[in-house]
Amino acid sequence: MSAESVRKMDKANDAYASAHSPSPSFKDFPDQKAVLVLTCLDPRCEPHHFWDLPADMGPGIMRNAGGRVTEDVLRSIRVISTIMSYGRNTVGAVVIVHHTDCGMINFSDDFVKGKLKERHPGHDQEIDEMFIGEIKDLEKSLKEDVALIRADPFLPKDLEVLAFEYDVFTGKAREVKV
Amino acid sequence: MSAESVRKMDKANDAYASAHSPSPSFKDFPDQKAVLVLTCLDPRCEPHHFWDLPADMGPGIMRNAGGRVTEDVLRSIRVISTIMSYGRNTVGAVVIVHHTDCGMINFSDDFVKGKLKERHPGHDQEIDEMFIGEIKDLEKSLKEDVALIRADPFLPKDLEVLAFEYDVFTGKAREVKV
Repeated sequence: MSAESVRKMDKANDAYASAHSPSPSFKDFPDQKAVLVLTCLDPRCEPHHFWDLPADMGPGIMRNAGGRVTEDVLRSIRVISTIMSYGRNTVGAVVIVHHTDCGMINFSDDFVKGKLKERHPGHDQEIDEMFIGEIKDLEKSLKEDVALIRADPFLPKDLEVLAFEYDVFTGKAREVKV
Repeated sequence: MSAESVRKMDKANDAYASAHSPSPSFKDFPDQKAVLVLTCLDPRCEPHHFWDLPADMGPGIMRNAGGRVTEDVLRSIRVISTIMSYGRNTVGAVVIVHHTDCGMINFSDDFVKGKLKERHPGHDQEIDEMFIGEIKDLEKSLKEDVALIRADPFLPKDLEVLAFEYDVFTGKAREVKV
């Protein structure tokens, strides 16, 4: 990222800040259960766009490669479950979105591990043991990830977990019953 | 999340899809190094807004509680580093953004762990060993997280890692030299 790119970012931010009204402070958040979305880091898969989500007071959005459930995702959901309304409320729903033409569909665990081994020799065993998160089948990956959240002992028993498939070509987000 | 909420989402998505042009497919991504942003899941901290980032072909955005570097974050960066241009390119820069009034500033590891133990008794040791990710000092947390990425043996040696502090009240994103 060049110094020029950073200057462009600063310029865009100056314009944004001059028109920005202060976001609500945490202490003024409404007393309600949190909703969290988990999806891919891919710039084509942006819940704010395809669900027209509000800025500022919409759901929290977790993003990683593929929108896969990992220990870090569980950490985030657990943290949110404890801090809403200073511990008096919790998380109500998690919505997982996987998408078509995802990097995790186009590339297998083997491809990624092969490249890592090639570029960073001498660490084959550590690389072999890495969780990569390939998606062979969108409904199957959603089912696995929903199950992982439902199985977590550190979340509310009545936590709703929903699954959606987002198509980057049609723009459609379709609920998948799992 | 009620059935009514899901219907609202579907309705918003219908409107979006009817106006949506297909996003580029992965095979048509430009042959260039990827840029990734890591930030908090907080809806007030949205890089698309405060940097006016383009949809579709902007940076990949990773988000979790606090924007902290975890194994999952390293997984995501490593994956992206291997799949750009089908293995012929890599990741060029990671930009980490932590923000004011973050949940990880307002609540300590002890608070979160205390709540988890209270709500889910019988798992104290496992909870004690969890990484929560509290932020006591924004510059310090950014420094730690930048160092974690720089130290990862599975990323390009010339990977640029930048740090920003976003103020949810002023809307300003300020680069922090670490």
